Amino acid sequence: MSITEISHRSKAFDDVINDAKARTRRLLKIDDTYDVLFIQGGASLQFTMIPMNLLPDDKSADYINTGTWSTKAIKEANILNKKVSVAGSSEDRNFSYIPKDLKLSQDAVYVHITSNNTIKGTQWHEFPNTNGIPIISDMSSDILSRPIDMKPFGLIYAGAQKNLGPAGVCMVIIRKDLLEKVPDNLPSMLKYTTFSQKNSLYNTPPCFAIYSVQLVLEWLEETVGGLEAIHDINVKKANLLYDLMSDDGFYRGTAAPDSRSLMNVTFRLPSEDLEKQFVAEALENGLGGLKGHRSVGGCRASIYNACEMRAIETLVDFMKNFQQKNG
Amino acid sequence: MSITEISHRSKAFDDVINDAKARTRRLLKIDDTYDVLFIQGGASLQFTMIPMNLLPDDKSADYINTGTWSTKAIKEANILNKKVSVAGSSEDRNFSYIPKDLKLSQDAVYVHITSNNTIKGTQWHEFPNTNGIPIISDMSSDILSRPIDMKPFGLIYAGAQKNLGPAGVCMVIIRKDLLEKVPDNLPSMLKYTTFSQKNSLYNTPPCFAIYSVQLVLEWLEETVGGLEAIHDINVKKANLLYDLMSDDGFYRGTAAPDSRSLMNVTFRLPSEDLEKQFVAEALENGLGGLKGHRSVGGCRASIYNACEMRAIETLVDFMKNFQQKNG
Repeated sequence: MSITEISHRSKAFDDVINDAKARTRRLLKIDDTYDVLFIQGGASLQFTMIPMNLLPDDKSADYINTGTWSTKAIKEANILNKKVSVAGSSEDRNFSYIPKDLKLSQDAVYVHITSNNTIKGTQWHEFPNTNGIPIISDMSSDILSRPIDMKPFGLIYAGAQKNLGPAGVCMVIIRKDLLEKVPDNLPSMLKYTTFSQKNSLYNTPPCFAIYSVQLVLEWLEETVGGLEAIHDINVKKANLLYDLMSDDGFYRGTAAPDSRSLMNVTFRLPSEDLEKQFVAEALENGLGGLKGHRSVGGCRASIYNACEMRAIETLVDFMKNFQQKNG
Repeated sequence: MSITEISHRSKAFDDVINDAKARTRRLLKIDDTYDVLFIQGGASLQFTMIPMNLLPDDKSADYINTGTWSTKAIKEANILNKKVSVAGSSEDRNFSYIPKDLKLSQDAVYVHITSNNTIKGTQWHEFPNTNGIPIISDMSSDILSRPIDMKPFGLIYAGAQKNLGPAGVCMVIIRKDLLEKVPDNLPSMLKYTTFSQKNSLYNTPPCFAIYSVQLVLEWLEETVGGLEAIHDINVKKANLLYDLMSDDGFYRGTAAPDSRSLMNVTFRLPSEDLEKQFVAEALENGLGGLKGHRSVGGCRASIYNACEMRAIETLVDFMKNFQQKNG
């Protein structure tokens, strides 16, 4: 029987989930003061589970707004009537940078950030100093793409479909002391403690997605060689593309240079017509998915962990040729 | 690129999800007064979403308790502080039958049942007459195993992993007038209207699981020939097993004969030692999964749609031999 057929109560599946958790801990250099949970519903469900579980009605949390995903996280906390303070935002310049000027509250329960914005192509390179207040980060689009010091983080979460595996599971890494703050009276499937107490097996988990995540973690640990190694590769990949860009050039990066993402390289061409032509000709050359997110237009190269160096080199060659012909 | 790699915003994936919905409608003979939704979190999340979306705080709903899953559904409604009346129960005889003596309220918003109990091996063969009050049914373990008249049903739901496909997606079929009752102020990912308005694509859906469901529906419609055909097969399969059982025989069925499930055949042997030996010898003969659910013991043959007739025939031969040697 295959992974889609075996019982999730079998030893075979226990081995899968436990190996995935152990590899995650080794890669992130965390011990068992953190738990690793597998929850359905993607980062979008986490936008509501986080304040539901960790933000008491009489306390407040700081959210830093760096675009679409942070905005949605704030919206879901508001739907629950939770007290949220926007402690920083880059909305004034169309979310093209990571804000440094933060107004953090001393009594916030947590500080929520989105570590990488897929749409605007921005990424936190240094995390904010929160004076011991736990940072909670949506890392859906850059988890395990670089080494991070987990100490300031109380919880990180990531829908699998960028760097971890197929869609259908969200990894949640939570510092165990935060689990003690989860209220008793929440629906079972919306409580972090349910997943922690039952090793993410309270009900039938998305076995295939978790198994695929295990394989990706194995690849990252054993074939690539860990987070320092993947980070070196990711820096090289991104720089090959950013090196083609300048403020007055044919390709213009849309993110502020100090906030540029290693995962999503966003850029414009001199005209929308040229952008259309660029995306179409790239596709003819086997280079798909270069259209910017439907909400912003322009062009975008999403170069997650699984995107190989030779794909970037092919794209760079194409971009140079395209510029020569049309620049 | 494979289904685990393509964008869920692509035409290819739209075709998958739309075909799955159309096949579901054709198989169940329903028109577009019902919507078909794909939601993560399994039936367990539905236990909370149903009262959250459809049971206003000043109204009450009837729940009929036929075992573990109904009990959990009632528990989750209670966690939300909703008014729930247990309108029928078979707890008095260890959930071994489907109760006929129901005390339905005239002003209930809905009547909740579990159409098939996997653990006790019971199944509703005739659905209760609710005088127009919509029935909501957990059909996780018998959806699409037989033709049903959908008219009395306001909502049916089914975690995919029994009859629909791999774990990781729950199918929810909801009568559209019920969508109008969904409160505005619910978290986006917990609102049926979010899934209905966005064709289950508000956020990244579990693409692989939905694709697999589409293939199973295609098989059911085109290879098997629809619900009448699968029902005929399921009746034949179950009867081959039930024919081996009698109240004073070697194999004793645990469910009341008029409540016997076509999906889960539960039975006992003369002693627990013989049951252990039965399960072990069966496994040696390539017949796995015959141990009863850990909460009740005994033996159980789960014979969902995908279980082929020849598997049942092999099991029957084994059971006859085992009885001859040990009876």
